Amino acid sequence: MVANLLFRADDLQNYMVDFFRKLGVPHEDARRSAEILLAADLHGINSHGIIRLFTYYGKRLKNKQMQPVTQITIKNETPATLAIDAGNGMGQVAGFYTMQRSIEKAQTSGVCFATVSNSNHYGIAGYYAKMAIANDMIGMSFTNSQPLVAPTFGKTAILGTNPIAVAAPAGNERPYILDMATSIVPLGKVAVYDKAAEPIPEGWGVDNKGNMTTTPAEVINGGALMPLGGPEIMRGYKGYGLGLMVDIFSGILAGAAFGPHVARPRTSDDTANVGHFFAAINISFFRDVAEFKSDMDEMIQILKNAPKAENEPRIFIHGEKEIEKSEKYLKEGIPLMETVVESLKEAGNEIGVPFNLQPITI
Amino acid sequence: MVANLLFRADDLQNYMVDFFRKLGVPHEDARRSAEILLAADLHGINSHGIIRLFTYYGKRLKNKQMQPVTQITIKNETPATLAIDAGNGMGQVAGFYTMQRSIEKAQTSGVCFATVSNSNHYGIAGYYAKMAIANDMIGMSFTNSQPLVAPTFGKTAILGTNPIAVAAPAGNERPYILDMATSIVPLGKVAVYDKAAEPIPEGWGVDNKGNMTTTPAEVINGGALMPLGGPEIMRGYKGYGLGLMVDIFSGILAGAAFGPHVARPRTSDDTANVGHFFAAINISFFRDVAEFKSDMDEMIQILKNAPKAENEPRIFIHGEKEIEKSEKYLKEGIPLMETVVESLKEAGNEIGVPFNLQPITI
Repeated sequence: MVANLLFRADDLQNYMVDFFRKLGVPHEDARRSAEILLAADLHGINSHGIIRLFTYYGKRLKNKQMQPVTQITIKNETPATLAIDAGNGMGQVAGFYTMQRSIEKAQTSGVCFATVSNSNHYGIAGYYAKMAIANDMIGMSFTNSQPLVAPTFGKTAILGTNPIAVAAPAGNERPYILDMATSIVPLGKVAVYDKAAEPIPEGWGVDNKGNMTTTPAEVINGGALMPLGGPEIMRGYKGYGLGLMVDIFSGILAGAAFGPHVARPRTSDDTANVGHFFAAINISFFRDVAEFKSDMDEMIQILKNAPKAENEPRIFIHGEKEIEKSEKYLKEGIPLMETVVESLKEAGNEIGVPFNLQPITI
Repeated sequence: MVANLLFRADDLQNYMVDFFRKLGVPHEDARRSAEILLAADLHGINSHGIIRLFTYYGKRLKNKQMQPVTQITIKNETPATLAIDAGNGMGQVAGFYTMQRSIEKAQTSGVCFATVSNSNHYGIAGYYAKMAIANDMIGMSFTNSQPLVAPTFGKTAILGTNPIAVAAPAGNERPYILDMATSIVPLGKVAVYDKAAEPIPEGWGVDNKGNMTTTPAEVINGGALMPLGGPEIMRGYKGYGLGLMVDIFSGILAGAAFGPHVARPRTSDDTANVGHFFAAINISFFRDVAEFKSDMDEMIQILKNAPKAENEPRIFIHGEKEIEKSEKYLKEGIPLMETVVESLKEAGNEIGVPFNLQPITI
């Protein structure tokens, strides 16, 4: 078992702000970007959090592959639509701006659909979808990403893990927050099995011939992830279809890169030209908000109280585990693997913002 | 192997029009409903076609569980939103009306989101999404349906097979038309294995204890379908989350029935209060339509020309198989199983519109 160190959420947030500021990101943008990265760690989605601070952002900012100042250009705007160019700036800054504007527009128009082109990795998709909830709206966000997933009957990575995030408010119950990659698992999960020298379940990935493999290294080296569903007999072409849908909305409709054209942030020298998609849907334009929330509560209670499968104590609603985790981590600290802390120290020295945070001692 | 009889598409269409008219459906509505049912058979989705003429529609119309004249009430309308009550009429009539109005609204507003409550089964979701394509729009449609799917870690059916349909135009290539249940397979597919006394793949369904079973009868009698993905280790909770999303949009947001409240059309005496959701997205509000289509063509070509897995000759785009099937069936006739023809004859006699069509002889 890899040892974890616990850090205070505030400390990590402040460190990331300093890190981004040192690289020329304006204070407000640095704060926003740090907050969205931290949200991933807080919710237990550590693959999308501080672990990427250097590889996805610091290195690319230092090498001028992305811009520290996010110059947003409005390509097209109407009361219910918005098309943005993010000027190869911070994905988080462009994402937050666009979702906020979408929510404003949906206040008066009922709905707003928005696209962002010329952007970079924006963190967890669920963060943006969730912004709608406090405004009594349903929120959606998709983004494309570097190619890692093979289409059904293919053997090479063409699509990203292209996530779908949808959030809807409830009344007394916790909200519904779906935030899912359209692959079965992210590549990072396969890497964890590889490091542990354990086989992966059949169906997660294919080798370089397109055959399903349980050897994680064969997926990582020349193979590809499988889409949600896995093989054809389990209807993996539906996951492939959803991944393609995300690329149509956030890549092609946005006028951003798509499919294999999306750059790999770790290794590519090119600008990424990642695309995002956002939607805000004002519930009050369809029905009474209190009635909507009351029905959401009832649906959630029906699901949670439904008869359980043998040996299963609990049925979950999407987002519930993550909310519970963030409550725990805010209190007790966020766990980071020792190897992650080491790489943060290395990156901190390279950028000139030493990572000197002290872990919490229990 | 069950024997199939071939019928001309026109003959089946005309028969269904007569059938609906006999039950009091106005001519134009009968024509529309027949056309949408026929579209399912033409595209090889025969579970949603003429096979349901009596069980889902004829019987319920005869028993006055649904209204032959679809009285549409507009509950709320703005330039980019529409909320409709279908008056417990024909789902196809309400669906066509609402998608058409959504497309009209998106001509000037750029997007339109629409909900329908108090409706009935509307056939294949893909039909409505596809309507957007000819207008250079992206179309979406969801609908909820009778409970057949267990949530992850549950053992009873709470959610319908709640389909997601999304369609986007291409240029020279065929359009992208995703039309997928959020379960792995429909219950009808499990029934086919049951009749053939063959085991189903592990992961399609659970027995009455919530354990995965390969015995189709255990899924049908007291068990439930599994959501896309299957068990937790293969991330079946994502399919469960998508099914819940469909119910939030088409059930709860619409103010229709949701979850286990959606009536079972074959057995329930209640009105169904099915809910639908539609969206039309005008591409020209986001980018140049010709450029969008050119990028769609490129993406489709990249996927189709990508290296194939061992022993796999072809990578498909969603909707492609169905379009090819409809071209073949329009020419050669639509295959119906002998048992289906028998049940059509029975139903025809009961309603007073004898099914006397002659199969095509080759």
